Amino acid sequence: MSVPTPGAPAAHRTGRSTAVRGRRGGQAGSREHILDTARKLFAEHGFEGTSMRQVARAAGVDPAMVHHFFKGKDELFAHSVELPADPEQVLAGVADADPDRRAELIVRTVLRLWESPAQAALLAFLRGSIGSKAKTALLREMVERRVISRIMASVPGPPEEVALRGNLVATQVVGLMMVRYVVRLEPLASAAPDEVVQLVAHTVQRYLTGPLT
Amino acid sequence: MSVPTPGAPAAHRTGRSTAVRGRRGGQAGSREHILDTARKLFAEHGFEGTSMRQVARAAGVDPAMVHHFFKGKDELFAHSVELPADPEQVLAGVADADPDRRAELIVRTVLRLWESPAQAALLAFLRGSIGSKAKTALLREMVERRVISRIMASVPGPPEEVALRGNLVATQVVGLMMVRYVVRLEPLASAAPDEVVQLVAHTVQRYLTGPLT
Repeated sequence: MSVPTPGAPAAHRTGRSTAVRGRRGGQAGSREHILDTARKLFAEHGFEGTSMRQVARAAGVDPAMVHHFFKGKDELFAHSVELPADPEQVLAGVADADPDRRAELIVRTVLRLWESPAQAALLAFLRGSIGSKAKTALLREMVERRVISRIMASVPGPPEEVALRGNLVATQVVGLMMVRYVVRLEPLASAAPDEVVQLVAHTVQRYLTGPLT
Repeated sequence: MSVPTPGAPAAHRTGRSTAVRGRRGGQAGSREHILDTARKLFAEHGFEGTSMRQVARAAGVDPAMVHHFFKGKDELFAHSVELPADPEQVLAGVADADPDRRAELIVRTVLRLWESPAQAALLAFLRGSIGSKAKTALLREMVERRVISRIMASVPGPPEEVALRGNLVATQVVGLMMVRYVVRLEPLASAAPDEVVQLVAHTVQRYLTGPLT
């Protein structure tokens, strides 16, 4: 599985107004130009609806050039999204944890990440992802493929139900991030991590494996 | 209580990159110039830390000019935030509902608002508010003063606990808005409103009046 190294794809920190620039970004044939093109296509057509070949065509380069810079579509996508942290690394352990006792680990993992030096980059990433419609589409693809899939690994149930449960877990986790770290409502923004875990893990566990209605 | 009419303060829909322009926005002494100045001060110092007099001074106008355009600080603040919907109107009834049975009404109200023609304006407002740090500060003030205060009206408990409960309600409601309407994860984004109410109202009720740990 290809992974972006933390801090490497940092364009979101310096190029806040770039949004999706398509052909105008970077020099023709450059890595940055290919990434700009890929961002545009992933945002419009999603991960499944975009191929390396289409990216090459839209960028006006030979497919071999795309493969020269990116091993496969996973790697191309990972770099397109410009994540400040690597979900595979951050969520290591979550997918292996017993689904019936996984909620606390999920919440602790989210808090640990946001209270690490990555916080500023995460904030910039989130502001950028929400601030533009095209980037929100990239965020959706990334969250579904690289975050929720791991959080919901081996949770029992029909696929549609597991997908709904994954969405519900996302509502609580995303809401916690927004209220505590972005909007910073008090007293939750200053509460100790242990207290936050106590307050919301119960909800996350219900969405993971508990009765839904 | 002063209220903005829906659709009236629509600068966020046309001026996406304005952020906080301070003295450079609008002509000196104009209503827009005063609003730009107020936005800057509210974002920096919050509602309580900002006075009409300070806004006038920072805008380089006589306080009478500020009072000419805005009846009081509440009205000045309401117009600074450029809300696409009026919380007083949207939340009418919530503050009067029995706290022990209020969650369903809250979730239904949020869904009704987002599924109304106001959705596009709400999306633009949210994107704008999250996309810039200064606007997020305005959002925090607005949410605390005009939304959470109503949602938590007459909920029993010590003030610090009620404030924490209000934050927790916000995590679930904000997370629901983000996942269903902004990021649009499926199947939650397409679920029927009644199903969504069934799925999350339980959590909101626990945060409102249930056991917290």
